[in-house]
Amino acid sequence: MTGKADLVESVLGGKRLALARLLTLVENNAPEGQAALDQLFAHTGRAHLIGVTGSPGSGKSSLVNQLALALRNPVDGQPARSVAIVAVDPTSPFTGGAVLGDRVRMRDLSGDPGIFIRSMASRGALGGLARATAGIVQALDAAGFDIVLVETVGAGQSEVDIARLAHTTLVIEAPGMGDDIQAIKAGILEIADILVINKADHPGVDSTVRALRAMLELGHPTHQVPAGSPTPLWIPPVLQTIATKAEGIRAVVEAIDAHARHLRETGAWQLRERSRLLAELEVLVQAELTAHWREALPPEALAAALVELETRRISPYQAAKHLVSLQPEAPIH
Amino acid sequence: MTGKADLVESVLGGKRLALARLLTLVENNAPEGQAALDQLFAHTGRAHLIGVTGSPGSGKSSLVNQLALALRNPVDGQPARSVAIVAVDPTSPFTGGAVLGDRVRMRDLSGDPGIFIRSMASRGALGGLARATAGIVQALDAAGFDIVLVETVGAGQSEVDIARLAHTTLVIEAPGMGDDIQAIKAGILEIADILVINKADHPGVDSTVRALRAMLELGHPTHQVPAGSPTPLWIPPVLQTIATKAEGIRAVVEAIDAHARHLRETGAWQLRERSRLLAELEVLVQAELTAHWREALPPEALAAALVELETRRISPYQAAKHLVSLQPEAPIH
Repeated sequence: MTGKADLVESVLGGKRLALARLLTLVENNAPEGQAALDQLFAHTGRAHLIGVTGSPGSGKSSLVNQLALALRNPVDGQPARSVAIVAVDPTSPFTGGAVLGDRVRMRDLSGDPGIFIRSMASRGALGGLARATAGIVQALDAAGFDIVLVETVGAGQSEVDIARLAHTTLVIEAPGMGDDIQAIKAGILEIADILVINKADHPGVDSTVRALRAMLELGHPTHQVPAGSPTPLWIPPVLQTIATKAEGIRAVVEAIDAHARHLRETGAWQLRERSRLLAELEVLVQAELTAHWREALPPEALAAALVELETRRISPYQAAKHLVSLQPEAPIH
Repeated sequence: MTGKADLVESVLGGKRLALARLLTLVENNAPEGQAALDQLFAHTGRAHLIGVTGSPGSGKSSLVNQLALALRNPVDGQPARSVAIVAVDPTSPFTGGAVLGDRVRMRDLSGDPGIFIRSMASRGALGGLARATAGIVQALDAAGFDIVLVETVGAGQSEVDIARLAHTTLVIEAPGMGDDIQAIKAGILEIADILVINKADHPGVDSTVRALRAMLELGHPTHQVPAGSPTPLWIPPVLQTIATKAEGIRAVVEAIDAHARHLRETGAWQLRERSRLLAELEVLVQAELTAHWREALPPEALAAALVELETRRISPYQAAKHLVSLQPEAPIH
């Protein structure tokens, strides 16, 4: 085992085992992991952070794999970019899904030192996943990856929270899902910078594209920017891919790069960076507050409150206020 | 406008407009809503709370509608039960999806005083949705509904959080989604008390049933209870339905009732109720802590911390610790 300074040095030096170890420490919320992240933070801010979300069944993971392959093997004389993939699986508290996912990916991407893949399962606690994801993205950024792709299972609040941690958000859909009103989510579209209809060889692709364009017209906030606004608008492109045949992937990479250029040229990169950091800060503050409260809580107080609740003598809100008021003093550091 | 006492009385008296008004107050986190909930809590604990989750495209909403119709129109001489439906749509911060969903439901279910439908969009803040949902379920329970169905969009951490607020959790899948490894989620299955394969007339239903049974064998914690354990196991049934043709619905209602009997006969109802209340308490404590912190925070402190973050002089964790330490004193009530 190496010490903390060694761990930081090794991560900065591109050592994969050290990076993997750091990510485990971060995922487990270990103090050494946090200490290393504190030191590494000065080296962050270089990676393009890309959130990828969308419905199950949209072929999201295959598309992410193909994006990584395309970024590693550019055709236009550009340099290959290093890629880290974080697959966030909030529904698998027992890691089954996450492990399985890794296995499938390995076949296509293993052996390439410019690719790093990490699967994360839920940490259970409210906000725990967003917290751990933010830390892992920081570590990968500091480790020097050009692109960090954060893939989430899609459609929940936690996915929206995780999207807030990205510079660019891709939303993946598949044809036919638009049959179901629930399938096309105005809220998910509102966070989309780039929309991808994968499985574009399946029936119904045209109506899905039309439905998504219509939803975009209705829902995307960039459409509500007043005319004459100084910042040129980013109209989210709607792209079609067939990830299993590697079709349409280059266009997605181009859209990703175009979005990064757009953000930098308009100054929006700075704004995204600020709201990213603010979102991250809020997640960490909430975790800190809860941890302090839990530490300071007399052990019998929670049990007593539960009995009062079960017998309906006090309401959950009254119990919560009471338990919060028991804190003896402000946390001091 | 009626006063607070009137509001509580009207809700207990089954007045629908008062109930709708209370739910809006709760959703907006208004103090009057909380005060009414505090008074109403003594009247809760009678409803059977059922969480319904599953992938977009599984036909979840149609199935929930059919369940409500079946509960309203029993064939076996049992009394009709009153049903409240809460459709939680965490991806629609701007309510577009929620409103649309209500419209579609109205055609089948409107005009029946024994049915109450409420759509909720995300409240934005971390944990805000779980908090509001808990309050709305309490209000509907106090208002005397026999069954409260909470429908979530599925697959995210927030859905798992919301499932923790239910006595019985239904997970809905559709055939063919099992082709995609991401589609069948061990974690979602672990929360399932009843599994429903809807769209059972679509191709691939047999392989989906097999895949789900296999995942259940692997993943469901009840399978890990040691032999000779005093509590008889609940093995989640895997049922097939075609919601659009109202086929298979009675069997789902029977499974729901069987699960309630199982919980009551084994004493597990009490345990679920306790963990439900504990989960609710944790959500409220976290919200309280964050609200107090925000109130006590000097306005310039957050802006200053953001500048330090943007220039990478301190890490997000260091900034969070600093901002939490600025709290002048413990909150007093």
